[in-house]
Amino acid sequence: MVPRILICSKIVWAHDDVKELLGSIADVVYVDADNRAEFLNGFKPGGKYEGAVGIYRENESANKIGIFDKELIDGLPSSVKWIAHNGAGYDPVDVHACVAKGIYLSNTPGAVDDATATTALYLMISTLRQYSVAERSLRALKWKPSGLNSKTHDLTGRTLAILGLGGIGLRLAELAHAFPMRIIYHSRHKATNAPEWCEYFENVEEMLAQTDVLSIHVPLRKETEGLVGEKWIRALKPGAIIINTARGKVIDEEVMIRALEDGHLGAAGLDVFPNEPQVNPRLLDFPQVTLLPHMGTENQDSQRKMEVRALSNLKDFLNTGMGKDLVIEFRNGASKVKPKL
Amino acid sequence: MVPRILICSKIVWAHDDVKELLGSIADVVYVDADNRAEFLNGFKPGGKYEGAVGIYRENESANKIGIFDKELIDGLPSSVKWIAHNGAGYDPVDVHACVAKGIYLSNTPGAVDDATATTALYLMISTLRQYSVAERSLRALKWKPSGLNSKTHDLTGRTLAILGLGGIGLRLAELAHAFPMRIIYHSRHKATNAPEWCEYFENVEEMLAQTDVLSIHVPLRKETEGLVGEKWIRALKPGAIIINTARGKVIDEEVMIRALEDGHLGAAGLDVFPNEPQVNPRLLDFPQVTLLPHMGTENQDSQRKMEVRALSNLKDFLNTGMGKDLVIEFRNGASKVKPKL
Repeated sequence: MVPRILICSKIVWAHDDVKELLGSIADVVYVDADNRAEFLNGFKPGGKYEGAVGIYRENESANKIGIFDKELIDGLPSSVKWIAHNGAGYDPVDVHACVAKGIYLSNTPGAVDDATATTALYLMISTLRQYSVAERSLRALKWKPSGLNSKTHDLTGRTLAILGLGGIGLRLAELAHAFPMRIIYHSRHKATNAPEWCEYFENVEEMLAQTDVLSIHVPLRKETEGLVGEKWIRALKPGAIIINTARGKVIDEEVMIRALEDGHLGAAGLDVFPNEPQVNPRLLDFPQVTLLPHMGTENQDSQRKMEVRALSNLKDFLNTGMGKDLVIEFRNGASKVKPKL
Repeated sequence: MVPRILICSKIVWAHDDVKELLGSIADVVYVDADNRAEFLNGFKPGGKYEGAVGIYRENESANKIGIFDKELIDGLPSSVKWIAHNGAGYDPVDVHACVAKGIYLSNTPGAVDDATATTALYLMISTLRQYSVAERSLRALKWKPSGLNSKTHDLTGRTLAILGLGGIGLRLAELAHAFPMRIIYHSRHKATNAPEWCEYFENVEEMLAQTDVLSIHVPLRKETEGLVGEKWIRALKPGAIIINTARGKVIDEEVMIRALEDGHLGAAGLDVFPNEPQVNPRLLDFPQVTLLPHMGTENQDSQRKMEVRALSNLKDFLNTGMGKDLVIEFRNGASKVKPKL
């Protein structure tokens, strides 16, 4: 009997790839449950999800069955061995519950780098040059806002600080180096794969004092919630700009808004917010702020890459017992769990 | 007696540079005429502009004395030998009238490349990813517009066609190569300074058939007015995007709007318009269009570079009889005029 794989809840761009990747090795079932209870009931004997060993998960499934929190994970049967999350940030899945229950979790790291770094680059140009307010002015039939030049700069020669030089941060570094901007960064450890023109700062505050634009590329974990708070924001060079394409909760939003109000921050370019899809209405009042509705990876090319990558983790797990993108909580020895088919 | 130089009508960012560049070699007079007659009257005996040999000119001076059209040029006395225009595009100065009258004209080519190419890159990201409509949706408190992914793409791997590989086009090529995009181009002649990854097309329509994004970087002249018209726009790959940071009149706007309406064009990113500061209101109706109010070089770093470059042409003319940025109409042998101090 071929193992059952659940698609929770849909594949948008990689339909043909599902057949190619899983068609001959799995029984692929699309989850159509309208709510969590119906979803979990499906795993019971005779249910359409019975015996499933792998689950493909994308964020829209949360609209019906909720995020993969502890309750949902704990409710899964022991047949489930692998959850393939579609996305780089896997905060909508309770990884600790997965570890405790012996369910592997993968994400789609490399697939999002290009699209997300491009979004950060866009927000950097928009805020340094003040193009969001310029377009609003044109669309209000007022042509060019006056006095913008005194607040605007070329990217070339400015200093970009990258907080977290993972795949996305490194990709942004490459794009910004084309100008060139000066690239400095802080990560928990010096990156072994960083080009020589990326300058490492062990001391964050020393880095921030030299920063024209700070771009955030750390995942949301307990340790990173509110990481960019009063101390770090005030350590930034006056007039500096914050770009966030990671997760809204990594920034202390109240502190950031105060710093925009009192002029310590020159601008902010935000693709993510603490309570998406809610956006703090106070942010709308700052003319110098560019705001996107979490568009980081939104485009058909990257969406397809992400779907293929998530599905490939399930394929590799079925074929070899291990997928390539097992998340770090399993890789760094924090867990001894070794689920096997 | 030191030669007189007119600043028409102001220097915004390079005040200190005026002293440095011209202080010891020229009598610098700031033009404060309220209208053209007053300006031209100033050159009469005893007038404050009498005997001026050089004129620094920036576009805002047109608000009071008008553009440097044939009438204005013809009204200048024979003492005037050099007009230093601040800007790459010198269509607001009648170069043929200058040639006829024996007045050299310079522009500020290199100084605008970085800022203008960055604007084109911004418009390219905004249109390929549909970020302008995404921000409007967020600001209308509607979060993410639905269905955008079916219209949006990564830049990486797409084909960018550059029409006119001068300084700005070449700079854009470098920035887009970082992704990389495939870069193809058409110029009147194959560029000798183009990197090997820039592919030259002598035949424009062959190039357009392979184009995902067409970015326009030709100056406005009689020969380029309406250059991008029915034939070329229809030769573009269906769904292609047009970016214009050059001059509005290089595109046949009516033809472009029809192609946006019938879906042949996927989007357009426009920083320039045929009748600035007027914008055709029909453009505002297309959700897929990004519109900027001619922000190409608007930022203090590039504005200062442009002022310094224009002033340097006057300095070099005073010191050596020739400035570095003499416009092509004088350089290509089209004129035999050789003004000297």
